[in-house]
Amino acid sequence: MHAYRTHNCGALREADVGANVRLSGWVHRKRDHGGVLFIDLRDHYGLTQIVAKADSEPLRILDGLRAESVVTIDGTVVARGPEATNPKMATGTIEVVADKVTVLSTAAELPLPVAGEQEYPEDIRLRYRFLDLRRETLHANIVTRTKIIRDMRRRMEDAGFTEYSTPILTASSPEGARDFLVPSRIHAGKFYALPQAPQQYKQLLMVAGFDRYFQIAPCFRDEDPRADRLPGEFYQLDLEMSFVTQEDVWNTMEPVIASVFEEFAQGKPVTPAGSFPRIPHAEAMLKYGSDKPDLRNPIIIQDVTEHFHGSGFGIFASLVESGNVIRAIPAPGAGAGSRKFFDDMNNWARGEGYSGLGYINIKDGVPGGPIAKNHGEEATAKLIAALGLGPNDGVFFAAGKESQAAKLAGLARIRVGETLDLIDKDRFDLCWIVDFPFYEYDEDEKKVDFAHNPFSMPQGGLDALNNQDPLSLKAYQYDMVCNGYEIASGSIRNQSPEAMVKAFELVGLSQADVEERFGGLYRAFQYGAPPHGGMAAGVDRIVMLLCGAQNLREITLFPMNQRAEDLLMGAPSAAEFKQLRELHVRVVEPQAKA
Amino acid sequence: MHAYRTHNCGALREADVGANVRLSGWVHRKRDHGGVLFIDLRDHYGLTQIVAKADSEPLRILDGLRAESVVTIDGTVVARGPEATNPKMATGTIEVVADKVTVLSTAAELPLPVAGEQEYPEDIRLRYRFLDLRRETLHANIVTRTKIIRDMRRRMEDAGFTEYSTPILTASSPEGARDFLVPSRIHAGKFYALPQAPQQYKQLLMVAGFDRYFQIAPCFRDEDPRADRLPGEFYQLDLEMSFVTQEDVWNTMEPVIASVFEEFAQGKPVTPAGSFPRIPHAEAMLKYGSDKPDLRNPIIIQDVTEHFHGSGFGIFASLVESGNVIRAIPAPGAGAGSRKFFDDMNNWARGEGYSGLGYINIKDGVPGGPIAKNHGEEATAKLIAALGLGPNDGVFFAAGKESQAAKLAGLARIRVGETLDLIDKDRFDLCWIVDFPFYEYDEDEKKVDFAHNPFSMPQGGLDALNNQDPLSLKAYQYDMVCNGYEIASGSIRNQSPEAMVKAFELVGLSQADVEERFGGLYRAFQYGAPPHGGMAAGVDRIVMLLCGAQNLREITLFPMNQRAEDLLMGAPSAAEFKQLRELHVRVVEPQAKA
Repeated sequence: MHAYRTHNCGALREADVGANVRLSGWVHRKRDHGGVLFIDLRDHYGLTQIVAKADSEPLRILDGLRAESVVTIDGTVVARGPEATNPKMATGTIEVVADKVTVLSTAAELPLPVAGEQEYPEDIRLRYRFLDLRRETLHANIVTRTKIIRDMRRRMEDAGFTEYSTPILTASSPEGARDFLVPSRIHAGKFYALPQAPQQYKQLLMVAGFDRYFQIAPCFRDEDPRADRLPGEFYQLDLEMSFVTQEDVWNTMEPVIASVFEEFAQGKPVTPAGSFPRIPHAEAMLKYGSDKPDLRNPIIIQDVTEHFHGSGFGIFASLVESGNVIRAIPAPGAGAGSRKFFDDMNNWARGEGYSGLGYINIKDGVPGGPIAKNHGEEATAKLIAALGLGPNDGVFFAAGKESQAAKLAGLARIRVGETLDLIDKDRFDLCWIVDFPFYEYDEDEKKVDFAHNPFSMPQGGLDALNNQDPLSLKAYQYDMVCNGYEIASGSIRNQSPEAMVKAFELVGLSQADVEERFGGLYRAFQYGAPPHGGMAAGVDRIVMLLCGAQNLREITLFPMNQRAEDLLMGAPSAAEFKQLRELHVRVVEPQAKA
Repeated sequence: MHAYRTHNCGALREADVGANVRLSGWVHRKRDHGGVLFIDLRDHYGLTQIVAKADSEPLRILDGLRAESVVTIDGTVVARGPEATNPKMATGTIEVVADKVTVLSTAAELPLPVAGEQEYPEDIRLRYRFLDLRRETLHANIVTRTKIIRDMRRRMEDAGFTEYSTPILTASSPEGARDFLVPSRIHAGKFYALPQAPQQYKQLLMVAGFDRYFQIAPCFRDEDPRADRLPGEFYQLDLEMSFVTQEDVWNTMEPVIASVFEEFAQGKPVTPAGSFPRIPHAEAMLKYGSDKPDLRNPIIIQDVTEHFHGSGFGIFASLVESGNVIRAIPAPGAGAGSRKFFDDMNNWARGEGYSGLGYINIKDGVPGGPIAKNHGEEATAKLIAALGLGPNDGVFFAAGKESQAAKLAGLARIRVGETLDLIDKDRFDLCWIVDFPFYEYDEDEKKVDFAHNPFSMPQGGLDALNNQDPLSLKAYQYDMVCNGYEIASGSIRNQSPEAMVKAFELVGLSQADVEERFGGLYRAFQYGAPPHGGMAAGVDRIVMLLCGAQNLREITLFPMNQRAEDLLMGAPSAAEFKQLRELHVRVVEPQAKA
């Protein structure tokens, strides 16, 4: 008989009744029923009920053990009988009567319970992550995470991609976030950087002639923690293809992503591959007020600027005259409800720093509120007809500069949708946002800057760079969005050295700057570079969506806390003087700066 | 028609003759045959011969292009005819007559040729790695590497393992090599470390109840470059299992590793799973003079110390009297050859710092050399019979302290095997080395120290630690060896907090030291730790063996050079003052130390 187990704790069935078995696992729960002790014995695979009979040696041993101790049980499988069967357990029809108990490891008093799912302070959970990870939901989430990643890998391989690992100790990245630096021991005063993304390496792979690359890639950004980003490292499904247009990337990746979602959606509908809407960026900003629209929300924003030329509602009329826009956010059915909803929305907008949200509330066909009153009956009727509003709908208005009005309208759309419960939570709605602007005007710096990825190919190429208004240029750049979250981003790359230099020139960088900052890539493009493009999908975000988790720490094995500390391993920690001397660095204490 | 290609460059066959096709790729080779230009067009998938007819526009364009420029060819597939068929190319029965050429990217003058396999200076190759990677052998090696890793992953998954990614920004590791450090921005004066191996995390995973873990794990050691280790990062197939004995690990991993080898051995014989010899460490040191024996070498070392008690060969006799050992290394068939071989071996041993290698050369049954002469005829005949030597064999003798004699004998065994060409190069001979000593005596520090992994379980556990001579203890620790290389190493871990404290106590570390250095793991063992064990296999070494590569840079995508520099990306590099200030460090120039 094996030293520790003949079966795992999820394996035994009624067919095993009568068998002598050996199980090992953790004491999950103990229940005393009139002198008989019932133990749920747990391992990675499941739970099995162990029975220790009254006055038996197994009972004596198990009774003295704390939960989470590890034991080996020798015993006999018996049927539970219909009345005692637990249909929630895979092993629920049987139990094992313990003949012998061997204690493999005793547990000290637990700082954190494992059985049950009660909330616990995060610092305790992270410090005792090895206990936290034994808890049912987190354990299952981590297993789901690994399955999702495995599924992604297999689907990418089936789509003809090959996984290449790119270096982790490398040079500063051009992605623009803050790098983690690693002092070099051999080269005094020099530093490696951890990759923010394998962007340059994957492009170099294409230049090196490897066609379809992917990688489940660890990425590193030394940014202050956010709700949607853990400190330190995160994972991307990173990919790149040669000799492709953006349509090729979309047509290749839609089936992969849709299938991954379908596999793990637990029956919830997923936008089918081949039918992801492809929404131009400008249209998304108009209709959804966002470049990551939640398409489960049925509300469509409309531009109603024209309606307010010379309107009796003077505030909007004068805003329109001075070049502002008015965006309408319908609120289906809200007119039948209370005025409080409209006032709350207005107050919320003010709380967010906007001047407010105008509105019309239609009750039994009668438009109410100051805008309707001042805009005039006929004009209001025309506006309502144009918006297609029903006799008990409402509508909000976001006014201001186009980008501001769009943003407010987008936020209002989300809030209206949530408040009116218009969003079907049990769906995964996927789409592409395409035709991103290549440049944007940086109000702070008073200059043209890259809107997104400087390595994207502007539509029209070098010719467009030379001859068009930079702010009118679109890029071959795209995002994939699910339920209001950007889950992937990509582009066709600018692989022409001349176009690359020109693109950077327009934001004020010289050829020398390009050579200095992106030398590896720029040099590579001199020696025969294929057209190429790709994207990177956020693994953590996709796992969160599919697990229904609200926090990245619920789907991450050993996360750091919000202070970028690993409480389990005690990182970061002080280094020895000898180490620092070898690395040619000295710590500068913050107070020493004064 | 697709913008860039209807087929890749490895796809067209005779069945496609007559088709209008579009191909894109690199201009690999150009050959002018009487006014007609032949181009080998290359992409990731293969080569296709393009024909540009005399005086045609395609010829004019292609003629003006340097090799490695990227083009799209529109043309017609034609049969080559038997006399022009190239059986070495998958597309060798056809060629494409170019109707139109579109230049996608022109190549500047190449610093490194792509076609052909001539040697080139390493610094040039690394600086222009994107060109180097286009070359046939390196390109193929990298693809094989990715396939081997994919195969490992699939076989591990099929064996019930789940891949978990462990953190890369973590705490200093206890593995004992030098850490790469990463200064913390948020915690002034503190540092993360990159993992030397995920050892502690994988053990924590077992304590957290995840049974069968594996990972293709990036590992980082800031060690001076060696022939068999690139600077910076390397990859391990890392794995861990719960509720297992060492036999379980062996029985699980033999099929995985044997199958990976069989898959990529290109028909060379591989030791079949289930039949890997399990050689105790002490036996390996005796018979092969090494804990990583090349079993393809048929020579078996024997201890002949007893033969030289009171021998007429006084040097050996007195060595034996003072507690030294004599090891015999047979050299089959060498006696028939020249004396020079024996003298060369002796000189080589002296060159290595040993006092020399004695020998007997038997020619036509007559033993020759000073040892045979002085040892005496009868004693020599007995010795030869004991060694089973034939009438024209030779034998060398390594004498000295046991560890020194074993080492010299091991080196001599390799050298004799190579010189006499006794090693079948076309085989993969796999074995386990088991029962490693747990402690060793550190001659420099004059104290007992861990021989290998301090986290291994000593055979006999706490009881043995308490009651046996530490230097007699063996560990549940094992290596897997192939053709003289250690390709994997592992152990059953010490998961008992008491045994862990005792094990460290014997090398002079206190419980407080253990808690401070390995706090995460030590703490975890207090709360129910399953027996567990595993191993880590060197991915790079396995790929090298299977690719037949002599240098890690020949199987690595973007390696650093021996000075730990990434010449392509320019790492390491100087950091900006602002970055360092944020990280609370200052560079200390080496000269400033004076």
